[in-house]
Amino acid sequence: MEAPKLELLMEMHAQNRSKLRQAMASSGSASGVVLLQGGEEQPRYCTDHVDLFRQESFFAYLFGVREPGFYGALDLTSGKAVLFIPRLDPEYAVWLGDIHPPSYFKERYQVDAAYYVDEMVQILQGFDPKNLLYLLYGLNTDSNKTSKPASFKGIEHFNTDLDTLHPILVECRVHKSKLELDLLRYVNNVSSAAHVAVMKAARVGMKEYHLESTFLHYVYMQGGCRYTAYTCVCATGENSSVLHYGHAAAPNDRTLLHGDMALLDMGAEYHCYCSDITCSFPITGKFTDDERVVYGAVLEAQKAVISEIRPGVSWIDMHRLAEKKILGALKDAGFLQGDEEEMMQRHLGAVFMPHGLGHFLGLDAHDPGGYPKGMERIDAPGLRSLRTVRILEEGMVITVEPGCYFIEALLIPALENCETAKFFNKEAFQRLRGSGGVRLEDNVVVTANGCENLTKCPREIRDVEEVMAGGSWAIC
Amino acid sequence: MEAPKLELLMEMHAQNRSKLRQAMASSGSASGVVLLQGGEEQPRYCTDHVDLFRQESFFAYLFGVREPGFYGALDLTSGKAVLFIPRLDPEYAVWLGDIHPPSYFKERYQVDAAYYVDEMVQILQGFDPKNLLYLLYGLNTDSNKTSKPASFKGIEHFNTDLDTLHPILVECRVHKSKLELDLLRYVNNVSSAAHVAVMKAARVGMKEYHLESTFLHYVYMQGGCRYTAYTCVCATGENSSVLHYGHAAAPNDRTLLHGDMALLDMGAEYHCYCSDITCSFPITGKFTDDERVVYGAVLEAQKAVISEIRPGVSWIDMHRLAEKKILGALKDAGFLQGDEEEMMQRHLGAVFMPHGLGHFLGLDAHDPGGYPKGMERIDAPGLRSLRTVRILEEGMVITVEPGCYFIEALLIPALENCETAKFFNKEAFQRLRGSGGVRLEDNVVVTANGCENLTKCPREIRDVEEVMAGGSWAIC
Repeated sequence: MEAPKLELLMEMHAQNRSKLRQAMASSGSASGVVLLQGGEEQPRYCTDHVDLFRQESFFAYLFGVREPGFYGALDLTSGKAVLFIPRLDPEYAVWLGDIHPPSYFKERYQVDAAYYVDEMVQILQGFDPKNLLYLLYGLNTDSNKTSKPASFKGIEHFNTDLDTLHPILVECRVHKSKLELDLLRYVNNVSSAAHVAVMKAARVGMKEYHLESTFLHYVYMQGGCRYTAYTCVCATGENSSVLHYGHAAAPNDRTLLHGDMALLDMGAEYHCYCSDITCSFPITGKFTDDERVVYGAVLEAQKAVISEIRPGVSWIDMHRLAEKKILGALKDAGFLQGDEEEMMQRHLGAVFMPHGLGHFLGLDAHDPGGYPKGMERIDAPGLRSLRTVRILEEGMVITVEPGCYFIEALLIPALENCETAKFFNKEAFQRLRGSGGVRLEDNVVVTANGCENLTKCPREIRDVEEVMAGGSWAIC
Repeated sequence: MEAPKLELLMEMHAQNRSKLRQAMASSGSASGVVLLQGGEEQPRYCTDHVDLFRQESFFAYLFGVREPGFYGALDLTSGKAVLFIPRLDPEYAVWLGDIHPPSYFKERYQVDAAYYVDEMVQILQGFDPKNLLYLLYGLNTDSNKTSKPASFKGIEHFNTDLDTLHPILVECRVHKSKLELDLLRYVNNVSSAAHVAVMKAARVGMKEYHLESTFLHYVYMQGGCRYTAYTCVCATGENSSVLHYGHAAAPNDRTLLHGDMALLDMGAEYHCYCSDITCSFPITGKFTDDERVVYGAVLEAQKAVISEIRPGVSWIDMHRLAEKKILGALKDAGFLQGDEEEMMQRHLGAVFMPHGLGHFLGLDAHDPGGYPKGMERIDAPGLRSLRTVRILEEGMVITVEPGCYFIEALLIPALENCETAKFFNKEAFQRLRGSGGVRLEDNVVVTANGCENLTKCPREIRDVEEVMAGGSWAIC
């Protein structure tokens, strides 16, 4: 797999800037300067330990800069892009490497000019006669936190606008360009191949973290992916019912046992663009009958959704479709009973899939833009977890990740509540409790007439079994 | 390699607390309560992305807790240790795993009691009649930042002491216990074996990050080390003259060429305890004559220092010894000329080794305690970079990492300055420029009569060549 060349990547960022400029003009802001502040290295507590720096995503989107401490400006009148670089201490040359002049960064990042941060006031004042700066300030609807607008010495000489930029820039990020899609395709190919490698390596007696390490090594060695999009979830057995397993308090340290299903949610990142893929499979490589039912339910849900995705489709409808498919399959297999319409009205699906069907994906694993101004979360089980309720549009990249989990914290109240208890065939259902869960997660891009699945993992039961038995699997 | 069992690790933390209690009593604080606040998860900018949490080191030292959001108290009168755990939202059980009661953490972390954070005021008031809390506030002399004392709702009901605890707790960390040494030995063994694996894997045409990935995979797969002590430095060719290469702006992405030396500074971490090891070797596996000189100079410096280390020895003297050995070897080989004593007076050694000879190592790669109150940095080239100027004492763990680099930013002024230019045999020396540098870094513990080297990498030229030619290398 060939990684996209730096030149193409920089063209991508130039297009991103051009798109923003057009969008700003369309909403009445054809002059003034967009100013973003890049990320800073963060030391750990009081020490001099610094974790590997990762650029802030909005800044990465517009400028593709990998270094900390930068600012970037886009003059809306002329379209010129300017980077402001920190003036480094001469000691930097001894400890951290060559000190490059602004011209180096102008060339590397293909911008119109580069200056030092301490020249910013003067340069910015030369751009816009009204000294108007559009700064980035707005809510991230996944974190409920607001972005920090650029700040710098001398900002009081400018007129700052905090309202205009954020929704427009977020909306630019929602629709991916051809070059962005090439990059997302690349990181998805690398991650898909890594998932296949992990599937083939999994053995009873290993630790969950051996699967994580195998994935990380694959994407770095084969794909040059130094970062992952999020902490790897390598859940086996009952752990696979913990949706965000793998964090520091649940660190992928269980031993794989005969009879376990694995649920592996792992995605690499390249040039700040993310993949987000989940595979589920039996450690032995052979599905039992019950595993076929649960896995099959999730797979049918995923396939049904993917076949429906096209511009104009409501994501809420897709979520409900997935719930319906899962409930239907559990009923067909005798684990549930009763009227499916009533199950849907009672939101029984949310007992098995408490998370949303999927989320936007791009420079963040949970890419912004799910709830533009005026859209609200739906206050109902399952639906309230949706990270977007939008109508799908061409160019959106979204994860399709139905899941079916047996989570005691949800099953106990559902079995105690007479309105939902009646749906359970308790004797048969008992077999599923403690078995964890299944999630299948693909990354798709909405096209003019449907969608393209960027993820290339084996999904059909026979394909998973064949690959795990040593069969080959072509990614590209 | 068998990782230390959790039970032993918890005994280690109990000993750490007991040591602190004794040290506090010895300096007149036999009552009151030591209160530390553990680390918190940090989201990335405005997003909901959370990097893998790593515990704050002082908190890890006393309590060994891997979860974020805790507080820990040590009652100096009774010696009782108490943990305060966050009260988690019921949603946690769905997304992040089982919600454990305080009794679970009391058991896991082998403390005397555990309560919720919101019970802290009441519980702490029950301990000490004077309501005296010792909080952690003091300077980290590597980062020049101060630790953030515990804060919580209701702190105004207590008398807080910000001065006493920090120097005493730092000093406890400076001298490692037997159980701490077992842990440091383990993580050093794992990292040493990983370095050997990397040495064997290195080939012309690889990328530097392939070496990083190989190391990371080895320490995680074989040693269960999910974290590294710092970002891997995988520098080849001229990059090996950049002391802290490998960061986001210099991301280990060069292609390995015939004729390159590699300088790999990589260390795994286990249960928050660090290793910090550097190996240098020719990518081809065969040293050239010039490489033998430079590598040999550094190796002789390292061996000379290690043979001298024992209680009572000044670290400044060790630094100067290393400089002297390196200068002597460069002179013997005809790269330098003139009087060695004068070279030392002119601090010529700092042109080739601008960093300090080594630093304390423990829960941080740069462990605190290098400059207790009253000790000052020495304002002279090289010496001012020393992270400690202390007299060595039994139980100190310190890195011994002499290096010899050809850094243009230092060579150019040294060659232009008539007081230092005369020492260079310019024609011969020209061959070394652009060749990068060599560093050899071992982790040693000062013993009663000398020191123990915890690092087990091949160091002699013949050993490095044999291992790279496929020879075996036993670690334990």
